[in-house]
Amino acid sequence: MSIPANRRTTFDEGQETITRGAFPNSRKVYVFGALPGVRVAMREIAQAHTKTGAGNVANPAITVYDTSGPYTDPGVAIDLRRGLHPLRDQWIRERNDVEVLDRISSAYGLRREEDPALAHVRFERSRKALRAKPGRCVTQMHYARRGEITPEMEYIAIRENQRCEEAIEELKRQHPGKDWDASLPMRITAEFVRDEVARGRAIVPANVNHPETEPMIIGRNFLVKINANIGNSAVAGSIEDEVEKMVWATRWGADTVMDLSTGANIHETREWIIRNSPVPIGTVPIYQALEKVGGRPEDLTWELFRDTLIEQAEQGVDYFTIHAGVLLRYVPMTADRVTGIVSRGGSIMAKWCLSHHSENFLYTHWDDICAICAQYDVAFSIGDGLRPGSLADANDAAQFGELKTQGELTRRAWEFDVQVMNEGPGHVPMHMIKENMEKQLEWCGEAPFYTLGPLTTDIAPGYDHITSAIGAAMIGWYGTAMLCYVTPKEHLGLPNRDDVREGVITYKIAAHAADLAKGHPGAQIRDNALSKARFEFRWEDQFNLSLDPEKARSFHDETLPAEGAKLAHFCSMCGPKFCSMEITQQVRDYAAKLGIEEELARAQGMEAKSDEFREKGAEIYQGV
Amino acid sequence: MSIPANRRTTFDEGQETITRGAFPNSRKVYVFGALPGVRVAMREIAQAHTKTGAGNVANPAITVYDTSGPYTDPGVAIDLRRGLHPLRDQWIRERNDVEVLDRISSAYGLRREEDPALAHVRFERSRKALRAKPGRCVTQMHYARRGEITPEMEYIAIRENQRCEEAIEELKRQHPGKDWDASLPMRITAEFVRDEVARGRAIVPANVNHPETEPMIIGRNFLVKINANIGNSAVAGSIEDEVEKMVWATRWGADTVMDLSTGANIHETREWIIRNSPVPIGTVPIYQALEKVGGRPEDLTWELFRDTLIEQAEQGVDYFTIHAGVLLRYVPMTADRVTGIVSRGGSIMAKWCLSHHSENFLYTHWDDICAICAQYDVAFSIGDGLRPGSLADANDAAQFGELKTQGELTRRAWEFDVQVMNEGPGHVPMHMIKENMEKQLEWCGEAPFYTLGPLTTDIAPGYDHITSAIGAAMIGWYGTAMLCYVTPKEHLGLPNRDDVREGVITYKIAAHAADLAKGHPGAQIRDNALSKARFEFRWEDQFNLSLDPEKARSFHDETLPAEGAKLAHFCSMCGPKFCSMEITQQVRDYAAKLGIEEELARAQGMEAKSDEFREKGAEIYQGV
Repeated sequence: MSIPANRRTTFDEGQETITRGAFPNSRKVYVFGALPGVRVAMREIAQAHTKTGAGNVANPAITVYDTSGPYTDPGVAIDLRRGLHPLRDQWIRERNDVEVLDRISSAYGLRREEDPALAHVRFERSRKALRAKPGRCVTQMHYARRGEITPEMEYIAIRENQRCEEAIEELKRQHPGKDWDASLPMRITAEFVRDEVARGRAIVPANVNHPETEPMIIGRNFLVKINANIGNSAVAGSIEDEVEKMVWATRWGADTVMDLSTGANIHETREWIIRNSPVPIGTVPIYQALEKVGGRPEDLTWELFRDTLIEQAEQGVDYFTIHAGVLLRYVPMTADRVTGIVSRGGSIMAKWCLSHHSENFLYTHWDDICAICAQYDVAFSIGDGLRPGSLADANDAAQFGELKTQGELTRRAWEFDVQVMNEGPGHVPMHMIKENMEKQLEWCGEAPFYTLGPLTTDIAPGYDHITSAIGAAMIGWYGTAMLCYVTPKEHLGLPNRDDVREGVITYKIAAHAADLAKGHPGAQIRDNALSKARFEFRWEDQFNLSLDPEKARSFHDETLPAEGAKLAHFCSMCGPKFCSMEITQQVRDYAAKLGIEEELARAQGMEAKSDEFREKGAEIYQGV
Repeated sequence: MSIPANRRTTFDEGQETITRGAFPNSRKVYVFGALPGVRVAMREIAQAHTKTGAGNVANPAITVYDTSGPYTDPGVAIDLRRGLHPLRDQWIRERNDVEVLDRISSAYGLRREEDPALAHVRFERSRKALRAKPGRCVTQMHYARRGEITPEMEYIAIRENQRCEEAIEELKRQHPGKDWDASLPMRITAEFVRDEVARGRAIVPANVNHPETEPMIIGRNFLVKINANIGNSAVAGSIEDEVEKMVWATRWGADTVMDLSTGANIHETREWIIRNSPVPIGTVPIYQALEKVGGRPEDLTWELFRDTLIEQAEQGVDYFTIHAGVLLRYVPMTADRVTGIVSRGGSIMAKWCLSHHSENFLYTHWDDICAICAQYDVAFSIGDGLRPGSLADANDAAQFGELKTQGELTRRAWEFDVQVMNEGPGHVPMHMIKENMEKQLEWCGEAPFYTLGPLTTDIAPGYDHITSAIGAAMIGWYGTAMLCYVTPKEHLGLPNRDDVREGVITYKIAAHAADLAKGHPGAQIRDNALSKARFEFRWEDQFNLSLDPEKARSFHDETLPAEGAKLAHFCSMCGPKFCSMEITQQVRDYAAKLGIEEELARAQGMEAKSDEFREKGAEIYQGV
């Protein structure tokens, strides 16, 4: 262990700098699958009883999808220097299609590993890197197409279901008169997961060198996922910050994390993040490649980029954003745009193309790139380098030209059994959002769409998590599989902890709103439980069931801080004397006493009277 | 002036407690109409030059819709004790259809006016209350149907246009290659305003006793409007707080303000608010009526309610929410709901109906209510007392039953020439939103729809401004005319200043996103200007053109506080060494140098090559 004392103060006593602990009234539960080692982590939120005149009635615990990994299980010891338990390690090795590398294959990676000056920032790996045996393909898509259900697929099926059957049965018991069939589950099976992955309609980002991931899936027939970006830049950031950012983002609900670092020690930072991440990690390899050539796009070469891909693949990056669709012929199409090219990757490649008078080398080397990624199961997130940076540029020829090329690249990657998703915009007004989804489905063969927002207006810097959540929820409903979060600092600066939390929660809202609109199995169970708790003034349950229990509680306490207020049958909106929810309960009691049948019969009579009233022009009631 | 010293410290030096001052780099401009006294206030935001190699190029000032009234015009003296200048007073009197009341007609109002104990909280009116002369109707709908274009209508036409023609011409000059026709204006004329009001498709809330309002319109063929709620409750609030809340909410963009006070001195608080409000004020009269009977719904009577309507109408309330659609026969339909009846007005009337075994007296007295409102031009906002309080209850029989009745009441009110809008939900998942809009249009004869959100998920207390902004933007696009804001404190507590600002800005975003999607004349001008400023690193212009310049600036300064950073050609996202926007500028310069024609010709050649590449399976480029 070569971490010197000044580091150790951070990492040894790391429990202080890394956020841990369960959410209030929540515990980690594990659901076992049929395949060996499949033990799916979920979060269970306990509820209080409902108090009625006839005594207490129990409310079921609610199970929710949990991205936070072992950090929220107080029973699991965490040591950042060792990394998380490699959950998938045995599954990977038992497939018997990988070889253990004596030393990593990247020249740059080796130099970093052997540089004694970097010892103080280096994560010491206990496992060597893996790679497919010669002639083998190790992607989940490859297994799926061969008809194999992997443990990862079974894990995902169990995870996506969130034990919703029990909860739905409970709801039916509690509200027998309501029609719950609209939210009844289409139960997700491992075979369905396999089939969707085989078709390319979903991906399971799962690099063989990132066995610490808890398997998850990105596809439009599953829960909508969200990604949070982290990464230091030349201006700010450090290794510890980045690891904690990853833990922090996944705590609040990030399904994947992209490390977009551009500053010092990118290689080492990434290793610390991957070893400690329970979620897939994505990167944009061209960012690091650009650092290696001193920030001059024209100096980029295929050889350098190739080495960077391998370097990152052997560390365990689960998906790569690659801007291979920025073709030379699309570049001049951006010249009259209001905001030209706003994607970093897009502008890097545009500059390279123009400098060399050549076609984008990522495009011309696409087959090579596919061959590399198939050896580690790195999925593609084909970048949208020409995405619109303003409403004025939405859905233009440059954007859609690139999208068509993304489709071409997708089909080519599938020939290598490499998993693919496609990145999408950007800034798009509401009425132009659907066209993006439709064209992507058509041109990219239903590969998962992964969008940034889209932002539905340009005029609210400081609130772009909201301008974009509107577009994100809509495009999620239309079929986008993963939403890249936007924080309140978008366009203005680097997000701090509060911004990351605000961005993640905002995007959980958008994703969940989309799940509800799509009728995902059981998505509404948590909503129903929270609403019932709210209606019954079970304040603690309302807080605990919410996406951000801390904020809900603190907002309540600002107005009514006393502990007693959380037991009171009123809230600050109406005050203690009058409360609509209390009156409703009286209405309900009254209706129950009369008997609903009787009441309805009575209402029939009133209807007849009311018809009469309408005919006579309302005067007859004026004396009442 | 009977305000004692302890009040005077607030109101005399009131400039300290009331927020004033122009927005950065903005000035109030006035556009004159053809009719006497029509002088429309707008906000003009100046921009810096664009620096190019060939020298500076001017950027036009951008004119934006301004709800903030005289408070943001440093040239106007404000004295809260006198109230705002009665802009519409002469127009109203010159129509010669109102009479001046020697004393107000409400028994309750008179008691309050004559109670010496209230002197310290009373606003001393300098003008007496007005009412229609016997047999006359003084509503804007009445004039519109007679074919008269009132000064209010001309004011509105000018206001809605926001001087967009000039701005669009400027954009065409700057980006000659882009097709701007999609955002070209359908110029709004006074005749169009009149026609929409006559059809009932839009309303102009303009009580003859609130001449201080700057005329505005609510209808789906105009800019989408937003409402902010203020009001003290038994738990918190004071008169000064409420006046400042109104000023604060309109400063950030509230088009109307609803005073939902339920605490002490409701009558006096309302008077202070109306006399100082440049925007229409709405109320829910049943709230005050309930106060008058000690909070017991069963004690409400028509006579008491009638007196309350007149009391408020003679103060100048511009629209009343009235829950006349909560019919007895709908009440039992809510018994099996997850969250029963969550509207205060709805539960009050439900309780009244059940207690008396009688039909809702607001429904049976609807004609009387119409006759009163026609005398003052108070518009109706027909309440949705049975709106869903959770996703589980969305679009159910109770909700849609009431909506049908809202339509019946709408048509009846139109017979009295009373202006009407209809309130809508609530909590509705995305895929069920459109049905609300379609049914409202069909059943309510295209009267303006005015919705609360809708919230698209129940699981995010603390973030319900966001859960609801998603639904609000969508339903605004579908045709809702006004959106009632939701603050982050919704369901949890009373909003403070920051919450009101956050709620208003969030709803400006939703409304603007809807305007863009609907293609409202010139809506995109501000977006385009801000995006251009962003692209050119005109940081100050980006801040100034945003909905919340203070927040945009402070977020930027958190990362790069130095003044120099606002002149720098980079931002904190990428750092000084590499910046995508800078590269794009180089791409653009390059393209310009080559000549776009030449470039396109070249691109054609590349395309042919690319086809060849595709045919050969990409290998041919691998040596590049």
